[in-house]
Amino acid sequence: MNDKIALDTAKNLAAKAAVDQWVTEDTKVVGVGSGSTVVFAVERLAERVWKEGCLADMICVPSSYQARKLILDHNLTLGDLDRNPKIDVYIDGADEVDSHMVLIKGGGGCLMQEKIVSSCAKTVIIIADYTKKSLRLGEQWCQGVPIEVSPMAHVPIKLKIEELFGGVASLRIALKKAGPVVTDNGNFLLDWKFLAKREYNWDEVNRALTMIPGVLETGLFVDIASKCYFGMADGAVKVQSK
Amino acid sequence: MNDKIALDTAKNLAAKAAVDQWVTEDTKVVGVGSGSTVVFAVERLAERVWKEGCLADMICVPSSYQARKLILDHNLTLGDLDRNPKIDVYIDGADEVDSHMVLIKGGGGCLMQEKIVSSCAKTVIIIADYTKKSLRLGEQWCQGVPIEVSPMAHVPIKLKIEELFGGVASLRIALKKAGPVVTDNGNFLLDWKFLAKREYNWDEVNRALTMIPGVLETGLFVDIASKCYFGMADGAVKVQSK
Repeated sequence: MNDKIALDTAKNLAAKAAVDQWVTEDTKVVGVGSGSTVVFAVERLAERVWKEGCLADMICVPSSYQARKLILDHNLTLGDLDRNPKIDVYIDGADEVDSHMVLIKGGGGCLMQEKIVSSCAKTVIIIADYTKKSLRLGEQWCQGVPIEVSPMAHVPIKLKIEELFGGVASLRIALKKAGPVVTDNGNFLLDWKFLAKREYNWDEVNRALTMIPGVLETGLFVDIASKCYFGMADGAVKVQSK
Repeated sequence: MNDKIALDTAKNLAAKAAVDQWVTEDTKVVGVGSGSTVVFAVERLAERVWKEGCLADMICVPSSYQARKLILDHNLTLGDLDRNPKIDVYIDGADEVDSHMVLIKGGGGCLMQEKIVSSCAKTVIIIADYTKKSLRLGEQWCQGVPIEVSPMAHVPIKLKIEELFGGVASLRIALKKAGPVVTDNGNFLLDWKFLAKREYNWDEVNRALTMIPGVLETGLFVDIASKCYFGMADGAVKVQSK
């Protein structure tokens, strides 16, 4: 078995377990995250609706264009925060999850909408393969913490982050356009590679980053996830709680 | 003398006094705020450059399209935060200034860029007519605190603000387009009418508002202004310090 199949199998296991546990006939509004693992969650939701005849009243609120398209492609009912500002359960992936359930998110650049939609949910469930599980942030993922910034402010914000917290904050450059990646919201992303050896208090760092004018959202999700479902290498699903 | 002339005279007095005090031959980069009072500041800067032959090396960094156009219309040197991330002095108006120099800004909808540019400045000077001076926020200005928000999140943010802090947060509706005002950054504005009788700790309120996902910036400027210059009704200029 090659790695790719193993990882997709692990993602699928986590997604199916989480959806089956947390999305019931009482669940009216589901928040849909973004990224490769969420694809399996939406597939499972669609299976429940269209093959098993369940969840007839379920509305899905997307956290990105990708999520919106997934919902539409699977003929699920599309909602939005104007009509559905209270979400029962939000299901999303993560780039890294530490032992305190602090998450790094935003590899896919949808961190702002993901944090917005998750902040409207009673319960936030994270699904991931085993490579996302860390004791300490930075073990698994070396791209850094994504930070969505106002385009006009990316230079002073980079300078401030590096001065306040060390490391290097780099403008994320696009592969299929010239210049920087532009998010679904029309902003830029800085990827902050923090100092691997420094002890950061992530709650404080997240608050300090968010207070920098022009920082629109950070990819640090602190005290947001209720449970994390990991598809493990041996085929088991491991559930992490706070 | 009618009120309008008196107010413009007061604005002009404040702007001229502040520019002459704070912009010297050592000032290389000036941040230019937005709004009606800033017009007088830019006029005075241009007078210093083009009539008095001073400030030849001065670069002006704008906080809005309005400010950018003012700089260009007066043939001053236009800068930006990519090239000029360190600003010597930032000059801007305010909608209200309380006795602790907490400001409400954003009546003109440029609060995000204003806070970004001001955050890059060593010194922040506020200029205003006497009607903007309050002992306590809310005395002078009843439009509320402007808050720039992600369009997708305006409904849940409104609900959260009203639940956390009371009062009413209303989407700002445009006069010359259908639907909401869209800011220079492509976002919406909530105007939060707080409770006049409640004692708010504005630093804490500002931090809590900013931490709400989808809140991109608030019009509360706490601990930002170094000095406020008020053009008074009697023709004097009153300088308020922290």
